[in-house]
Amino acid sequence: MKKPLILVTNDDGITAPGLRTLIRIMKELGEVVVVAPDSPQSGMGHAITVDSTLFSKKVVVDHMEGAPNEYSCSGTPADCVKLALREILDRKPDICVSGINHGSNSSINVIYSGTMSAAIEAGIEGIPAIGFSLCDYSWEANFEPSVSMVKKIAKEALDNGIPKGTVLNVNIPKTNNPPKGIKVCRQARGNWNEKFDKRTSPSGKDYYWLTGEFELLDKGQDTDEWALSQGYVSLVPTQFDLTAHHAIPQINNWDF
Amino acid sequence: MKKPLILVTNDDGITAPGLRTLIRIMKELGEVVVVAPDSPQSGMGHAITVDSTLFSKKVVVDHMEGAPNEYSCSGTPADCVKLALREILDRKPDICVSGINHGSNSSINVIYSGTMSAAIEAGIEGIPAIGFSLCDYSWEANFEPSVSMVKKIAKEALDNGIPKGTVLNVNIPKTNNPPKGIKVCRQARGNWNEKFDKRTSPSGKDYYWLTGEFELLDKGQDTDEWALSQGYVSLVPTQFDLTAHHAIPQINNWDF
Repeated sequence: MKKPLILVTNDDGITAPGLRTLIRIMKELGEVVVVAPDSPQSGMGHAITVDSTLFSKKVVVDHMEGAPNEYSCSGTPADCVKLALREILDRKPDICVSGINHGSNSSINVIYSGTMSAAIEAGIEGIPAIGFSLCDYSWEANFEPSVSMVKKIAKEALDNGIPKGTVLNVNIPKTNNPPKGIKVCRQARGNWNEKFDKRTSPSGKDYYWLTGEFELLDKGQDTDEWALSQGYVSLVPTQFDLTAHHAIPQINNWDF
Repeated sequence: MKKPLILVTNDDGITAPGLRTLIRIMKELGEVVVVAPDSPQSGMGHAITVDSTLFSKKVVVDHMEGAPNEYSCSGTPADCVKLALREILDRKPDICVSGINHGSNSSINVIYSGTMSAAIEAGIEGIPAIGFSLCDYSWEANFEPSVSMVKKIAKEALDNGIPKGTVLNVNIPKTNNPPKGIKVCRQARGNWNEKFDKRTSPSGKDYYWLTGEFELLDKGQDTDEWALSQGYVSLVPTQFDLTAHHAIPQINNWDF
């Protein structure tokens, strides 16, 4: 039987430890091809490169036997997936995995997430896709405790497929022990309380750094935030049909 | 009675004709403050500026009496809204309108849309928000036939509010006559068939331009694409809870 073809990407860049971990795990499940940004792309949301050129080249990151084919790309995570599907791969991948992100993509963070935008891009093309994120922003984050769960989720997705029109958003708690298990969840309501750190440049121009704190606005025990707080891996099936179907009748009452 | 405070932004940049049209319309409904990108940001999706500085300054675009307060910002549309809410405005706006975009944001385009990311950012903050787009990419697009409908929709949203957790995605057909009316719709299924135009730089590096064609995968007569094809303005209530609730039971059957 032919090995499954696995497209691996991320938003932290092709040398990120989280990506290297994900490649290692996926090599146990199939043939891996990597197409990832040549520099960090965090917070890129679902950006694509429309009015600018896109550079891509074959690279060797791990100099060892059995190293996968790897390509770096100057674009966003969504660009990487488009380029992989249209230009680089000679057949449709059986699955696309993105990450493992250095930092959380739970709750409203999914909206800003380059990791998830890559997975969603693959999902739009009808490819089973999963974004993996570890709730630890450090470059030295410890991915080892979650390795077996990442593998398990990817294997289940390969075996069962993923419900049509959905993409999996998997977040892993920061812990030095294996997570307690996996909870299928909904996205918690929450937002960011931004604070802009205002400064003045040497030439007298005002500028800002964006900082802020996440605020959880949801007390439900069926959310990703709750699962993570209890030491579980959260798995949210996420969709790219953004229609708020329940709101259609209400707006139909408006006086147009 | 105090006039409503209206935050106006876009993704085509502060001098775009679509934004100038939207400002003119909104001035008839309330007090307008503009915070918009200093350069075009199309295809930025929900990107935010996290690892870079953000410049902003007060600008005068229209030198005339009654001109609104305007600020340009070096960031993305989502950055503009965050900066407006946290740093520029002294009270919460009654509504945020984004656009009028030069080009369609119907169907799957909503995912890539900077126009809609600004509206969604305001929606996350609990502010009624609408993204307006005209299905004409030209800088010389004719916005006049749709002026009265844009005003009508914004007025209805100010009067009725917008259902919680939703943001309106309004698309306007390209026509020299007034649209036939307004249809409340769902997002049509569709995707982009990208073609990468591969070239070689003078120094011998391969690079690509992203091009492609939209492919409609939906024959429903309740979609935004259908409404637009029939000469109607489409209005899709759009949500930022991306949970595919219907998929949760199915994934709970997986063997974790």
